Amino acid sequence: MKSLLLIAHGSRRELSNQEVRQLTDQLRIQAGTEFKQVSCAFLELAEPSIEAEIDHCVQQGCSELFILPYFLSAGRHVSEDIPQAIARKQADYPDLRVVVLPYLGASPQLVQVLLHQLNDS
Amino acid sequence: MKSLLLIAHGSRRELSNQEVRQLTDQLRIQAGTEFKQVSCAFLELAEPSIEAEIDHCVQQGCSELFILPYFLSAGRHVSEDIPQAIARKQADYPDLRVVVLPYLGASPQLVQVLLHQLNDS
Repeated sequence: MKSLLLIAHGSRRELSNQEVRQLTDQLRIQAGTEFKQVSCAFLELAEPSIEAEIDHCVQQGCSELFILPYFLSAGRHVSEDIPQAIARKQADYPDLRVVVLPYLGASPQLVQVLLHQLNDS
Repeated sequence: MKSLLLIAHGSRRELSNQEVRQLTDQLRIQAGTEFKQVSCAFLELAEPSIEAEIDHCVQQGCSELFILPYFLSAGRHVSEDIPQAIARKQADYPDLRVVVLPYLGASPQLVQVLLHQLNDS
């Protein structure tokens, strides 16, 4: 069973965390039937943590976990913190297949999104 | 004369700032001929500052400045810090027309970008 997990930084400002949850709702609607679960987790400052959400996915029957890092740059969070959290859980669930997709900022489509905002103005 | 300014947070990690500069180069290529200048500025931790880059734009003849905030959430940076920096410069250049576009995270297209990364995997 496939699950999709969006990982965001997390904020002290609850409205920012809500933005991530709403984006996750949109992802769930638009991802189609391939994923039985579409959820989000936060690196820090908000719940659920990455580890807790991976536990939850596995408890729900997830065998393949696709992770989307919702970050704009390939800093320490993307290159170290997220892989370390995943590695800890991979040790608990050696049969879980985990695919970490490129972080958002790596998408060549962002230029088009920015230009679209401009043309809508 | 129209200028386009991408404002990013800025990072201690120079590679992250370089990602923003490369994105700005792509914006310049794809924005077409409407903008005589396409540049970037950083809220903190990297150069140029927002104020310095607005000065530079005006010195180059800019009369209409379109600002794209390269941020994922509408936190303090987007809602307070960037508007305050702009307001300080607007006081210096009362004739400059400034249009602040929605921050990146507000774009409904981000869901599609995330799904695209998934389908490319």
